[in-house]
Parts: sequence; C-alpha cells; structure tokens
Amino acid sequence: MSHDFAADTIYWPTAEPFKLETVAAGKTEAGYYYSAYQFCAAEHGGTHIDAPVHFSEGNKPVDQLSLEQLIGTAVKLDVSAKAKSDRDYQVSSSDFQSWEEQNGRIPDGSIVLIQTGWSEYWNDRTKYLGTDKRGTEGVAELHFPGLAPEAARWLTENRKISAIGLDTASIDYGQSKLFESHRTLMARDIPAFENVANLDRLPTKIKLVVALPMKIRGGSGGPLRIVARTDVP
Amino acid sequence: MSHDFAADTIYWPTAEPFKLETVAAGKTEAGYYYSAYQFCAAEHGGTHIDAPVHFSEGNKPVDQLSLEQLIGTAVKLDVSAKAKSDRDYQVSSSDFQSWEEQNGRIPDGSIVLIQTGWSEYWNDRTKYLGTDKRGTEGVAELHFPGLAPEAARWLTENRKISAIGLDTASIDYGQSKLFESHRTLMARDIPAFENVANLDRLPTKIKLVVALPMKIRGGSGGPLRIVARTDVP
Repeated sequence: MSHDFAADTIYWPTAEPFKLETVAAGKTEAGYYYSAYQFCAAEHGGTHIDAPVHFSEGNKPVDQLSLEQLIGTAVKLDVSAKAKSDRDYQVSSSDFQSWEEQNGRIPDGSIVLIQTGWSEYWNDRTKYLGTDKRGTEGVAELHFPGLAPEAARWLTENRKISAIGLDTASIDYGQSKLFESHRTLMARDIPAFENVANLDRLPTKIKLVVALPMKIRGGSGGPLRIVARTDVP
Repeated sequence: MSHDFAADTIYWPTAEPFKLETVAAGKTEAGYYYSAYQFCAAEHGGTHIDAPVHFSEGNKPVDQLSLEQLIGTAVKLDVSAKAKSDRDYQVSSSDFQSWEEQNGRIPDGSIVLIQTGWSEYWNDRTKYLGTDKRGTEGVAELHFPGLAPEAARWLTENRKISAIGLDTASIDYGQSKLFESHRTLMARDIPAFENVANLDRLPTKIKLVVALPMKIRGGSGGPLRIVARTDVP
C-alpha cells in the first residue's frame, strides 16, 4: 500500500522532489558487480506518515510512535463516489455515522483508512493535486479531498482511533488554509498516513495493518511502508 | 529492532553521514505550530536492507522484493560468546549445524537472524566498526564479525531461507575484501538486513518478523524498519 520513491514521486508543491544519486553501479576492480545509491527526500512526500509533532509542538516525533499505534486492526470508509463528483470533498462526521450504521461502531484502537479513490490519479500529478504548479502558487491551486475539521473533532472526541490514513496528499483537503484536521488529530497524538496506495483492494474491516515509518530521530514524519493482511483467521 | 537515523547513525566509512535539515519548526504566520524536515542518506547505513541487486547484477532491487520474503517466521543463532573473544569471527556452517542439532532443521522460508552481540557497541563507532577512521583508510581497519562465505554457500545450497540479518554493519565480516557472502546470498535473491537492533531480546524461534524497507524504485537497499512479534499463538 506504498507508492515507490523516485524523481516523479508526488511531493507538496513547495517541497524538493525526491533525488536518487548513483554511488556505484557496475563491475568493481576486484571483478564483482556492485551497486549503491544515496538519496535526498523531504519527510512529507510519497507514501508517508505525519507524526504528531508535525502540527503539535512537543508531541511525538516519528521515532517515538509506539508500534501498538501503527499495527492493528483497521476500518475503511469509502467516499470515492462523492469525491469523484467533487474534488474538494471533505469527509464529514455523518459519513462516519453512516458507516457505523452499516458496520457497527468503530472499534477502539482502530486505524481508520479513508478511500477517496485518488490513488488512481497517482501517475498524473495535475489530476492528483489539482495543479502541476510548484511553490506557493501551486499550493493555492491544490484541489483534492480530505477530512473535514468537524469530522476530525468528532473522531477524536467520540471514538478512540490510533491512527488515520488516506489516499490523497494531505489529511486536510487541498484548499485548507489552517490545516485544522491535522491540528486536531495531532494534538491528540494521532498520526496520519498520506498518499496511501491500493485502498480499493481492502475490505471494509481489515484484520491487520502494519504501518512502519522510517525511524528518523526527532522527525516530523517520513517515508512509510504500509501493508495489510486481510486473511488472518 | 531498528536503530534511529540521525547525524551519529553509523554508516560505512566511505559513505556520507545521515543529514537532517530543518525546513520549518515554529509558529506560522497563521498562528499554528508547524515543523517539517528533509534529509539525505546513503542506502546502506543504519538499520537497512541490502537488496539482491546490491551485489548481483539484474537481480531484485529493494522495491521489487516480495512481502512474503520480508514477513514470516524466523530463527535466531546466537554467536555472541564466540564473537566476544574474536572481533573477526565468521559464523560457520557448523554453527548452523549445531543450532539444528538443538533446535531442529531450519524451516523452509525462514528469516535467519544472527546475534553477534554487536548492537551493544552501537553508540561507540570505534568499538562497533573497529575503527573511527573514514574513507578507504577506515575500510582497511574494519573489524567486526560476519557470516563466513562457506556458511553462506551452505545456507543457500542446503536450506531454503527467505532473508538473513545480523547486528553488524555487513553480512560479510569487517576484513572481507571480496564480499563473497553478499555475492552468494544475492545471486539467489536473498536480501540481508544489517545493523539490526535488539536481537538479544528475541527467542531462538520467532513466530513473526516484519521487515519493511523504504520503497526506493530501483534501489540497491534502503532504510529498514524491522519488528518482531513473539507472542503470536
């Protein structure tokens, strides 16, 4: 459920793109093949995690997140039909309440995954972000779905979730200026997974999700490898 | 079982150290807190994976490794007593044969973990690598334990392992010049986990290891997050 990292991986319009540099690739003097690379990356691009300290001073950095928070059962909310007809769609608390009417209460400790259907646009930066422009000019033109601030409040005040994730570039929708959903979640030490892939392949209830971020000391986030197992007994 | 990444994280003497740069950390004009960083790293430093293409041309890069190979049951061989009295100790096929006499045959598909005891030196670069020198001068003075080439051959020819890992900087011992264990393993598409932490906390047989590398497209390796669960029924 992770996109790969390369020069064309989608990052925020203001961020440097991912860079891979060849250190060696070929036969050595001793006669054997050897390849090695080095890379530079922003924390918040590609499939990555936002640690609470990203938007909440003094809260947990990425290396301090407990594995219990990153590994566990998950639920999936599919809003792709609504998002398809509205690039600026914000998932509401009533979307979650409708989900619960059908599927029962979101269990305590769940990882909540939101499928907007956006990952099908991953290979087209303009469709995915709403713009191909870079810098602050690009930020102004971002259009993609996210979680409404009132839904973030509802989730944190009324349910006990351990983490949240979605298949767009940000848990707040593209036109957000104040990033209130980030701030609400992260004030409660709830991390967010962004640019998650393959959510369409998951069922509504997932028995095991394992989300392991790169362990950057003091990091506000970082590259995330996230996998799911749906066949656990 | 992963060390964290920071400026003091141990990399190969010829590699650039890990660098973290602050993009933002503080109150924004809009009044909320925001922090973000970017980083540069070599693939092969800290707790990381060597993908087969690292030493075997045309074999799998890190993003192509199957999850089946990186997730599964594991066995642990503890050679820390021998390594303690010999910094250049190379784990032999007879070490594995002795392990099997006590514990039974290494099951097909196992991840094999070798505990040399070296992670207790992690905070002391000189003790861990055998030298604090950098560059090729440092490489010449590397002294730490590893897997003997004959043991790599024995494992690949006589057992079906899916991956191998240890708590030193390289699967070949420090004084290796030809990296034959790497080459033998990687020719068979067996990846290696290096600089693994906390192996002393694992039992001899481990029910579940999950080793998820950063998904660098075409990468010869990369940062690895590795966790184990020992209480699965």
